[in-house]
Amino acid sequence: MYQRIVLASRPSGAVEASNFRLEKAEVPALAEGQVLVRNHYLSLDPYMRGRMSDAKSYAAPQALGETMIGGTVGEVVESKNPKFAKGDWVVGMFGWSEMGVSDGTLLRKVDTTIIPASAYLGVVGMPGMTAWYGINKIIEPKAGETIVVSAASGAVGATVGQLAKLAGARAVGIAGGKEKCDYVVNELGFDACVDYRAGSLDAGLKAATPDGVDGIFENVGGACFDAALARTNAFARIALCGMAAGYSGEDIPIRNPRLLLTNRVKLQGFIVTEHLDLWPQGLAEVGKLVASGKMKYRESVSQGLASAPEAFMGLLQGKNFGKQLVKLI
Amino acid sequence: MYQRIVLASRPSGAVEASNFRLEKAEVPALAEGQVLVRNHYLSLDPYMRGRMSDAKSYAAPQALGETMIGGTVGEVVESKNPKFAKGDWVVGMFGWSEMGVSDGTLLRKVDTTIIPASAYLGVVGMPGMTAWYGINKIIEPKAGETIVVSAASGAVGATVGQLAKLAGARAVGIAGGKEKCDYVVNELGFDACVDYRAGSLDAGLKAATPDGVDGIFENVGGACFDAALARTNAFARIALCGMAAGYSGEDIPIRNPRLLLTNRVKLQGFIVTEHLDLWPQGLAEVGKLVASGKMKYRESVSQGLASAPEAFMGLLQGKNFGKQLVKLI
Repeated sequence: MYQRIVLASRPSGAVEASNFRLEKAEVPALAEGQVLVRNHYLSLDPYMRGRMSDAKSYAAPQALGETMIGGTVGEVVESKNPKFAKGDWVVGMFGWSEMGVSDGTLLRKVDTTIIPASAYLGVVGMPGMTAWYGINKIIEPKAGETIVVSAASGAVGATVGQLAKLAGARAVGIAGGKEKCDYVVNELGFDACVDYRAGSLDAGLKAATPDGVDGIFENVGGACFDAALARTNAFARIALCGMAAGYSGEDIPIRNPRLLLTNRVKLQGFIVTEHLDLWPQGLAEVGKLVASGKMKYRESVSQGLASAPEAFMGLLQGKNFGKQLVKLI
Repeated sequence: MYQRIVLASRPSGAVEASNFRLEKAEVPALAEGQVLVRNHYLSLDPYMRGRMSDAKSYAAPQALGETMIGGTVGEVVESKNPKFAKGDWVVGMFGWSEMGVSDGTLLRKVDTTIIPASAYLGVVGMPGMTAWYGINKIIEPKAGETIVVSAASGAVGATVGQLAKLAGARAVGIAGGKEKCDYVVNELGFDACVDYRAGSLDAGLKAATPDGVDGIFENVGGACFDAALARTNAFARIALCGMAAGYSGEDIPIRNPRLLLTNRVKLQGFIVTEHLDLWPQGLAEVGKLVASGKMKYRESVSQGLASAPEAFMGLLQGKNFGKQLVKLI
């Protein structure tokens, strides 16, 4: 027997524990070509909130009664597929579940000798590729430019700022609380970080961006986006990655979109899983930076599958500090 | 003596007649290399509203007491420049003025035997190039796609829709009033036009775009933009050309920018005068369409320089019907 968590009901507004249900399931017998994986870590990500809703989106909504979607890393415990052997470490999309069966499609073997397994769900996984794509394919920072990223201490934001710095740009983060801001500046090496909870986001960002803003990597939307937009220089680029501020269904207007025109801004919404062709390049580049210690990351790990709903609700409220994971073993 | 109109004061809110002042000036003696032009037509355009304000913008504000900025077409009446002869027709930026002196820089000779002089201020001028750039360099319509343009009966919008049709796309306009909408469909050949004054913009646009929207050429902002954004398909492109709805200083929020993310939209603000390198190509293409009768256009002509302020205020309120010109002779 193993445990999994299914979507019990769709949230109307904020996510609640009652939207999830923990179930027990039988470990299935493998068919020819299949592998059985014992998941060690589950990744929790803001996009999951979108899937819980049945509003029109880029992805089909998560079905009720089915295992919640999610990225996992784990160990092959049984294999009837010649491409995988017992003991292999694999990244997959087994969802909020202790175990998973796959025919090998979308399953990726990873080397955990140089890079810890959990990092393949963060900086060397989807969040890292999200940062890498937005920086390299949309913002394209030049030396001396200023790049702003919201949710700067999160898995995506931390990577965005470090990649911007490596490109010679000035990196300015927005994060919630002094502890996170201190981490962003002192540990990750950003040039500045504005605490949006301190009550003076607009003034704080103005002070932190004396030469204006040339690139925005937007993870949050709402007031963060408005504040950054107000600081844009001519020909600024915006990688629109997330609008977490509106995931609970409320309107999140842009206060002054006219700046998009007057500053001749380029804005591009994107979903990194639509650019899988670029992942090998991105994973190689970021993986090398992680292995050599040039790219830092931080994790928030909750213990046991049953803790996932609470950890996820915390993530949506910004309570996590770094990449949110659930340790399953 | 000749007449000109200068900016007397900056508007606080809506433009008023008192913001302008009609002055008389002496015709200057020409220096070597200069030409004197008698302007026949002045172009009135929404961008002038932006210049009247001293808010941060892509262009320096119009100076108080100076001739209002504006494009003109006229005839050379005296020349001390070997490149221009008396009787040449030229397009220039002489502003709200009956005459102008130039050293030839930015003065462009035009052929008025095939294309009427006034058209060089509209469809074969800046508005036409604005449409051509947005369609060809940002939206890039494919056959079968749906393109929406606001202010569809205006100089830019009319050209946008006709270029979209020529590319095999479905063209849907938004305009104010039944007369304009009838013109857009019956004369310009758009597939549909929604009357935003009829009170059901969202429902009307939904009915007019059964397959959603793949491209938006935005001239207006505000409710028009929101309605079009709500209909976007995945990978829609937005050419952000104007935000006339906010020219008087009011906030014009985008109600639901999350669609920019969920539909992976590309949005590009642009100013066509920053792409002068492409004008020869665009002018040749659009000029050929006009000369052969494949591109239609309409003009609203007010008589005499003194009528310019009222005509301009009417333009900002959508009272014009087609390209707004002032006949100066």
